[in-house]
Amino acid sequence: MSVTYADSGVSIDAGNEAVRRMKQHIRSTFNEGVLADVGSFGGMFQPNFGGMREPVLVSSMDGVGTKLKVAFMTGKHDTVGRDLVWHCVNDILVQGARPLFFLDYFATGKLDPIVAADVVKGLAEGCRTSGCVLIGGETAEMPGMYTDGEYDIAGCIVGMVDKSKILIGASVAPGDVLIGLASEGLHTNGYSLARKVLFEVGNVPVEEVADELLAPHRCYAPAILPILDAGDTIKAMAHITGGGFYDNIPRSLPENCGAVVQKSSFTVLPIFERIQQIGNVPEADMYRTFNMGVGLVLVVAPEHADATLATLRASGETASVIGEVTTGAHEVVLA
Amino acid sequence: MSVTYADSGVSIDAGNEAVRRMKQHIRSTFNEGVLADVGSFGGMFQPNFGGMREPVLVSSMDGVGTKLKVAFMTGKHDTVGRDLVWHCVNDILVQGARPLFFLDYFATGKLDPIVAADVVKGLAEGCRTSGCVLIGGETAEMPGMYTDGEYDIAGCIVGMVDKSKILIGASVAPGDVLIGLASEGLHTNGYSLARKVLFEVGNVPVEEVADELLAPHRCYAPAILPILDAGDTIKAMAHITGGGFYDNIPRSLPENCGAVVQKSSFTVLPIFERIQQIGNVPEADMYRTFNMGVGLVLVVAPEHADATLATLRASGETASVIGEVTTGAHEVVLA
Repeated sequence: MSVTYADSGVSIDAGNEAVRRMKQHIRSTFNEGVLADVGSFGGMFQPNFGGMREPVLVSSMDGVGTKLKVAFMTGKHDTVGRDLVWHCVNDILVQGARPLFFLDYFATGKLDPIVAADVVKGLAEGCRTSGCVLIGGETAEMPGMYTDGEYDIAGCIVGMVDKSKILIGASVAPGDVLIGLASEGLHTNGYSLARKVLFEVGNVPVEEVADELLAPHRCYAPAILPILDAGDTIKAMAHITGGGFYDNIPRSLPENCGAVVQKSSFTVLPIFERIQQIGNVPEADMYRTFNMGVGLVLVVAPEHADATLATLRASGETASVIGEVTTGAHEVVLA
Repeated sequence: MSVTYADSGVSIDAGNEAVRRMKQHIRSTFNEGVLADVGSFGGMFQPNFGGMREPVLVSSMDGVGTKLKVAFMTGKHDTVGRDLVWHCVNDILVQGARPLFFLDYFATGKLDPIVAADVVKGLAEGCRTSGCVLIGGETAEMPGMYTDGEYDIAGCIVGMVDKSKILIGASVAPGDVLIGLASEGLHTNGYSLARKVLFEVGNVPVEEVADELLAPHRCYAPAILPILDAGDTIKAMAHITGGGFYDNIPRSLPENCGAVVQKSSFTVLPIFERIQQIGNVPEADMYRTFNMGVGLVLVVAPEHADATLATLRASGETASVIGEVTTGAHEVVLA
């Protein structure tokens, strides 16, 4: 008897086929910064520093959590990649950075080249639409690590900002206005709670909520980058991810400031109302777990609020003033 | 009845405790390039371009495969992080790049803050020893995605090289010499085959091979970077990872060159001989799955071989000439 690598559950053929199917998607994201083609040990990117005096690299690593379970339930694998990229784009956008490139990690128990390529198709779409190159990645077949038909994905984004343009929120002061930009759904947070409530407590058929649950993470870069380029109107931003309003808004405020958010000032998406109703979920848990309908929060001086809202709306965003910066405890109060 | 986020299997308290335990390890890697502390949306790093004329960013994403299963079997979680970082450092080193920063992804079903912090301790050690900052990461608790007590990790490295110093192997020519640097064990490749053969076919007690199987990925940067800084002796390099000699050495050669490797020229580590014996694994599978005892291959002109070997040995590496570049098919032949 002879044991081969294939016998151990790792198929080099499946790996090669996956790469073959991914290549066109990956290459569709390439721009003039890319120095090597698919298959190098490391991806090479030559940034165009333009007029930057002190270029700073801003990076973030993330996953999409158990939103993947909804992809498994529905067999729809070409959207979670977009979620992952756009989530990461927003994460560096709030510090003022513009994306340069992205790398992904795809891990599964038994590699299905078609599923892997579908995921990469979504990643590539997310990259193209945000001006980001898919410069590298890893496809890992790990027998016994994942349930059949399941996988995990993670992604890393690297972007750039001139040091003097980093949004650190130092100028944020009491009386400044919080502008909320509407989200498209849960984005990539709170799926464990949503799935428990909808599918275990509520026995909701997956078809009934699949579209709402798979609605992609909104990418705010197209609306925000032109405002950043035009001047210093935006003092700070918060990406509303895990931890919701409570954990994320304070990250955009100086230590000596808090914020009040008016719940009546934005539209809570129906999916959140449904989750709260079915699960009788405490309000504090809702606002610490979900974005509730607001995916990005900007801090601007009161005199800039109207013009900023007009610009955001002209870019296709649903935006409204949702609260203001206050003196006192470094926390968010819902009113 | 009321469903909270904690009821769904995600503990914000465990997440906070994990971050608290990780912070000291993360901060131990910081240097003057770091602009923000733990907890920002994105990690910020200001590279020192020194005298570089055209800085190129070189990046790589990877995991450690089912080496994790050995960590689970032994309960030793503070070494796999080093594996991950050093693997990534080597991946960009072979293109001539020096590491700047690293980001990690840690995903598990039920977050154990002590295990997560142990993993990050290993990551931080890997970063410190290779002059790399652990600038960001994601700790994901994903109920139902991973078997109890298990987790997956992925990491992304970003490094830098001046464009004119990128090792693309263009000057590699027939007659050039291959120098092999000894590995420490399996590094991070071939664990599915190794585990199947050792534990399923051979019923080898895990204690008997745990140390060999967990031996960390060797980091070649300390030995190689000074040689790169000193001149253009090294024409190309290959990191021997998944795909072994067959898939990796050709990546360092021009399309019109191949290579011959003398099997008698380096020491095959005992663990590989044992795996081959117990599993009766075909030789081709051994050399396509494992590094067999050689973790890095350099290509140098014949007249530079002796001096390079001397320098490598003075740095503590076990190095020998293992073959040469040939005309003809773009492949590796074992002799």
